[in-house]
Amino acid sequence: MTSASARMHAVQTPVIPTVAALIAKTPGTISLGQGIAHYPPPPQVNDALSNFWQQPNAHVYQPVTGTPALKAAIQQKLASDNGVDIDAARIIVTAGANMAFNNALLAVASQGDEIILLSPYYFNHDMAITMADCVPVVVATDDNYQPDMTALTRAITPRTKAIVTVSPNNPTGVVYAAESLKAINDLCAEHGLFHISDETYEYFTYDGVTHISPLEFAGADAHTISIYSLSKAYGFASWRIGYMVIPETLELAVEKIQDTILICPPVVSQVAATAALEVGKSYCEPYVASYAEVRKMVLAQLAQLADFVRVPQPDGAFYCLLNCNLPYEPMQVVQKLIRDFGVAVIPGDTFGIEGCYLRISYGALAKDSVDAGIGRLCEGLQAIAVDGC
Amino acid sequence: MTSASARMHAVQTPVIPTVAALIAKTPGTISLGQGIAHYPPPPQVNDALSNFWQQPNAHVYQPVTGTPALKAAIQQKLASDNGVDIDAARIIVTAGANMAFNNALLAVASQGDEIILLSPYYFNHDMAITMADCVPVVVATDDNYQPDMTALTRAITPRTKAIVTVSPNNPTGVVYAAESLKAINDLCAEHGLFHISDETYEYFTYDGVTHISPLEFAGADAHTISIYSLSKAYGFASWRIGYMVIPETLELAVEKIQDTILICPPVVSQVAATAALEVGKSYCEPYVASYAEVRKMVLAQLAQLADFVRVPQPDGAFYCLLNCNLPYEPMQVVQKLIRDFGVAVIPGDTFGIEGCYLRISYGALAKDSVDAGIGRLCEGLQAIAVDGC
Repeated sequence: MTSASARMHAVQTPVIPTVAALIAKTPGTISLGQGIAHYPPPPQVNDALSNFWQQPNAHVYQPVTGTPALKAAIQQKLASDNGVDIDAARIIVTAGANMAFNNALLAVASQGDEIILLSPYYFNHDMAITMADCVPVVVATDDNYQPDMTALTRAITPRTKAIVTVSPNNPTGVVYAAESLKAINDLCAEHGLFHISDETYEYFTYDGVTHISPLEFAGADAHTISIYSLSKAYGFASWRIGYMVIPETLELAVEKIQDTILICPPVVSQVAATAALEVGKSYCEPYVASYAEVRKMVLAQLAQLADFVRVPQPDGAFYCLLNCNLPYEPMQVVQKLIRDFGVAVIPGDTFGIEGCYLRISYGALAKDSVDAGIGRLCEGLQAIAVDGC
Repeated sequence: MTSASARMHAVQTPVIPTVAALIAKTPGTISLGQGIAHYPPPPQVNDALSNFWQQPNAHVYQPVTGTPALKAAIQQKLASDNGVDIDAARIIVTAGANMAFNNALLAVASQGDEIILLSPYYFNHDMAITMADCVPVVVATDDNYQPDMTALTRAITPRTKAIVTVSPNNPTGVVYAAESLKAINDLCAEHGLFHISDETYEYFTYDGVTHISPLEFAGADAHTISIYSLSKAYGFASWRIGYMVIPETLELAVEKIQDTILICPPVVSQVAATAALEVGKSYCEPYVASYAEVRKMVLAQLAQLADFVRVPQPDGAFYCLLNCNLPYEPMQVVQKLIRDFGVAVIPGDTFGIEGCYLRISYGALAKDSVDAGIGRLCEGLQAIAVDGC
């Protein structure tokens, strides 16, 4: 009798498709679920693609770690936006940032090795670690979802290979202070660990808070893996382009992984990505400014629930994570919110935390739809608090 | 000190980039190396993409296992070309057939499980198995590169999870007889194993030989994974679209894998692939007819070397594997061929066989370039046979 591997039984079921299926059963539901940007890529990308078809080599394999043109654009971006000068050989283009994490993980860890995740964590990181026969060691953050250095230090064992940070954070929206990231990066150096830094939301910060990449720290080169995505900043989700900067020591290992899984990233998407990066981060700035307003409205509305809902300050990304003082499993609450109030959020247990936590994504909301979405959510949570689930 | 994982040290270094680097050092080299088709995708694909940018949902995530439109086109193809009626849920679209193999493997095998490969094998299969902490169990084929059922049966242990076949075969070009594939498929059923059937070259057969998919066998549904690619048939290598048919029992496992590694296949490439499949296999038929002529010329020229080079009958794909009676490591021969004769082939040891084997790909050659490429090869091998390496 043939059946799926024990390996995959151990991996959690992805929650986004599960919630999507619930939404599909309740037409008219407003989704505060999946983390997507509501805007398209820059129009210059469409222009750049207009003569792609006729280009020599448009339809054949390209180098395993990315085209020279895209890597040059990424080098330029890393210099101008992150202030670092990175050799092209250390830049790896992937079919999305999830793949970058997966490939980084395989390059640094073998069966049984431990990878430290800060909880609440990004669920696909937990899934990738389990899938790779490694052990996710989950270290809780503090009440404001900020790193707890004592707990992190205590979690390191001889089998630890890396500490993963996501800042600005999915699912909490919090941004780690430069000092916290530096302390984690130093801790990794001291213990011979890699620091895997997921910076997907680097441009999405608010109220004067700014992002810093651990790549900028002195001495970070040899042990820091920084992961980036075009999906959010450039409205690029469907094109599947992410990239990472790796230490020189990992180049051969990552080339093997890329060759085995992907051969090369999709070339049409790489041409699109090159054009997007040439437009640069100024493209997303007006959208980020608009998210800043949406975020204010979201937080103002959520403040009505302060009696039983805590929302630690989300200064980045387009998420916030509600800590609800409700005696229910979060999935129960999610089901009731969709069924009876027509609004969808993501249950917190998928992020590795116990208690009634709910993640809101406001990335898909323009200002004019935020009132309705968050209004339904507040109404629903208040009703649940009074009448039960 | 941070360094790459033991996992990746155990994985062989991909040979294609290594040979490509040698070629780059010797300008003017004719490459009989990488397996690529020399023709572009159908022009209808370009037409279908002309209004992609403006489509609703063009830039957002789509379902993890493929768009409904592409899956419908694949269903249609499986019905018309392979004679099977497959539920859409069993169809998984990936960013290339290599990814399909990787994802199938993770779905069926856990750490320490054994996967049987027939040698000479496709090197990325060996790499994926090692990368996934599984054990490649290599079973030699016979002198004509055909399956040896006795040896295959003997190789099965309680840890075996799957037998992998590639027919038409890379690197040998041989096509397995329907009876051989049926015997392997039955052997798998009998022992509770999966049969992973890579059918990338299904349309590339010559001299009246035809391909059959194990999916067509009665009782195959529950344990057969068939893998397909658009890269060759539709000149689609850079677009990175492959797909596979999986047993129903693997659906959840594969969804988890797709979500973790890819989120969804690149949507622009899926739109392109849908248009290519709508054109259908008639598109590649003239090219296959042209390869048939090239193949005849290649075999006629190689016949001059019959004294010391055996070429078992390659009835499919666009490869042949030369068994050279030469007392040299194949990489030594490859280096000399590139350096002194300006022609590149792939050394056989990368396919898991010992001895002086060389793989020729004639996929990149149009008729007018084949004489020059194979001419240099024959001249080089004759010189090496006489004067040494």
